[in-house]
Amino acid sequence: MRPLILALCLLGTGLPQTVLAAEPAPGVPAATNIPGVAYPRLLPDNRVVFRVKAPEAQRVQFRIYQTFDAVKDAEGFWTVTTEPQVPGFHYYWLVIDGVAVNDPGSETFYGTGKQTSGLEIPEPGDAGAYYQSQDVPHGEVRERWYHSKVTQGPRRFFLYTPPGYDQNRDARYPVLYLQHGGGEDERAWPIQGRVAQIMDNLIAAGQAKPMLIVMERGYAVKPGEAEVPFGPGANANLSPAEMQARTIARFGTFEQVLLQDVIPLVDANYRTIADREHRAIAGFSMGGGQAFMIGLRQPGLFASIGGLSGTGGTIADPATYYGGVFADAAKFNASTKLLFLGHGGAEPERMMTGFHGFHARLTELGIKHAYYVSEGTGHVWLTERRNLREFTTRLFR
Amino acid sequence: MRPLILALCLLGTGLPQTVLAAEPAPGVPAATNIPGVAYPRLLPDNRVVFRVKAPEAQRVQFRIYQTFDAVKDAEGFWTVTTEPQVPGFHYYWLVIDGVAVNDPGSETFYGTGKQTSGLEIPEPGDAGAYYQSQDVPHGEVRERWYHSKVTQGPRRFFLYTPPGYDQNRDARYPVLYLQHGGGEDERAWPIQGRVAQIMDNLIAAGQAKPMLIVMERGYAVKPGEAEVPFGPGANANLSPAEMQARTIARFGTFEQVLLQDVIPLVDANYRTIADREHRAIAGFSMGGGQAFMIGLRQPGLFASIGGLSGTGGTIADPATYYGGVFADAAKFNASTKLLFLGHGGAEPERMMTGFHGFHARLTELGIKHAYYVSEGTGHVWLTERRNLREFTTRLFR
Repeated sequence: MRPLILALCLLGTGLPQTVLAAEPAPGVPAATNIPGVAYPRLLPDNRVVFRVKAPEAQRVQFRIYQTFDAVKDAEGFWTVTTEPQVPGFHYYWLVIDGVAVNDPGSETFYGTGKQTSGLEIPEPGDAGAYYQSQDVPHGEVRERWYHSKVTQGPRRFFLYTPPGYDQNRDARYPVLYLQHGGGEDERAWPIQGRVAQIMDNLIAAGQAKPMLIVMERGYAVKPGEAEVPFGPGANANLSPAEMQARTIARFGTFEQVLLQDVIPLVDANYRTIADREHRAIAGFSMGGGQAFMIGLRQPGLFASIGGLSGTGGTIADPATYYGGVFADAAKFNASTKLLFLGHGGAEPERMMTGFHGFHARLTELGIKHAYYVSEGTGHVWLTERRNLREFTTRLFR
Repeated sequence: MRPLILALCLLGTGLPQTVLAAEPAPGVPAATNIPGVAYPRLLPDNRVVFRVKAPEAQRVQFRIYQTFDAVKDAEGFWTVTTEPQVPGFHYYWLVIDGVAVNDPGSETFYGTGKQTSGLEIPEPGDAGAYYQSQDVPHGEVRERWYHSKVTQGPRRFFLYTPPGYDQNRDARYPVLYLQHGGGEDERAWPIQGRVAQIMDNLIAAGQAKPMLIVMERGYAVKPGEAEVPFGPGANANLSPAEMQARTIARFGTFEQVLLQDVIPLVDANYRTIADREHRAIAGFSMGGGQAFMIGLRQPGLFASIGGLSGTGGTIADPATYYGGVFADAAKFNASTKLLFLGHGGAEPERMMTGFHGFHARLTELGIKHAYYVSEGTGHVWLTERRNLREFTTRLFR
């Protein structure tokens, strides 16, 4: 009888998928590669070397903001070196004969409406240490399924609990509800956003208060309910008032899930401080729009709101904007603990126009808010990791 | 100023990626599809319709055990209908001009050494209800990072905690250490294996004891340590004694991680019953080999062992097999709470030979063990979900 374990290991052993050539390849494998996989490789100047074996393909490209044509060698490997990339996390694609797919050498990340390859370009020096796993006390990210009374089906959220949550059995904690961007889902903040690493490090350094962070799925429809058309096409030519109504229609069911399912479940099952002063809502991009919509409509629930590369849209007439919440600035400022707006300094022009306009309008109306710009970064996860750091270090103070 | 949210939604809104044609397509989207994506579709007889748009490709195939050639239509969509598939979870690939990649319409699952498309074929009737999320009390799956003293770097495990763990503040629980198969990692049991759904349902029905389940990464190397060559090629022609030595060399560092890092961390941070009677180790395939290796070498730590489509290899001379642990059957039986071997009835022939041989040898030596066969299933996750159910319903009794 042959040793069974021979057969049991047929599926693979975690060994490298791409064998290095005798000549050492330049650069280092990206941290986002499958462990042991040699490509993509990062060069010291942040150029990226992509490679894939595709002897029968007619054309192979790699797409990371721009599309780079790869060149085929005699063994059928296609290789290309990109321009230098900005540090941080980027989605990218392998394009084989015109079809954009994942690079088999990369981990995948749910973004852009599907599972997508991702590339982490390290920041210089220790700039990125705050989102790396360090030898500090560690909290947990908990995956929690529940039966939604609103959608009448299973849903889940992720919950960050800080170090010591299980040991400090009488401690109670404030709660941040933190939403992902469009085309992403409830996995984005724990994975691309590195919530646990950032919070563990900030809490260990005494820079953030220990808090719970709930990361829900920002999409919800009731049985038989159609999704409200939304996005650049559907929203074109709407007035600010029509746009606000469309936003509420689009995200109203999600708001109900949060109010009727999630917040009661969290307050009943975890040691929260269940009052408005200790409850915040924030989000990235589309999630920022949700945070302003829900936070401003529910001032009895939330005393703090964060827009992370996302705003509350156009404030045309303060008397009608979300029930007139900004009409009396003194009253709003007195009852609000933190209003935060942060964005990258190099986001696309339409977004920059929106951030600058929202910031200017808040200032003009006398609405107190913290404002942060991440220099040199776009509408990407490095901006949001920094936004999360800047927001949470100011939160629940 | 244009409403900012227009721009913020550019990344996508979670709407369907593939628009249905006017003629309704037959079948239903697979549960493993990206939400809203129409293909792959399942027909009532478990044939699968795959489709992808690739107007420039020369050849498109879909690979699910066999490779099926797709046919291109005038709009550049390639479509193929497979033979009927066995119920359960299957890895599959889109093959574009010879390159096996992920289907953009599918969720991805870490298996076969990379992120891979997956397809869930439902079982008839309620046969699969035990691994669906039901309206029952829910436990959690916790992601926990830690700094390993053995590998001197960050590692993580997933931990299932049963419903009520946070509320029943004085309850203590037995612990199962549960390992993935080769080419998979610590995400496989929570995702492909549906550990939380299975345990929530079994516990709600009173069929399994509430327990903690730790799911670690089955690979570990120390700084500077080379991985021991392993697998069908490297292991060829080894004697049983040499094979056992190779197994210990290959997985010895992982065993140290478990013994020096993980078990102490779990017993210090969670409300375990920290004795051998309340600690078990089990695994799928390669993980089953690890479970027998570690469980049989550490009888002071583990009183129960489960081989889920995995065995302890060839028992040639009981006097030398893992320190002679099976040499005195009466002694082993008296000190062991549960030895379990389960496998599919339709696994590949070499594996079946191994399972039957291990089962026969245990029987011949008088080693008491529970034995389960999942009729009609192969070396796949449906077998392992059933194995987990059969193992955990017998465990800690």
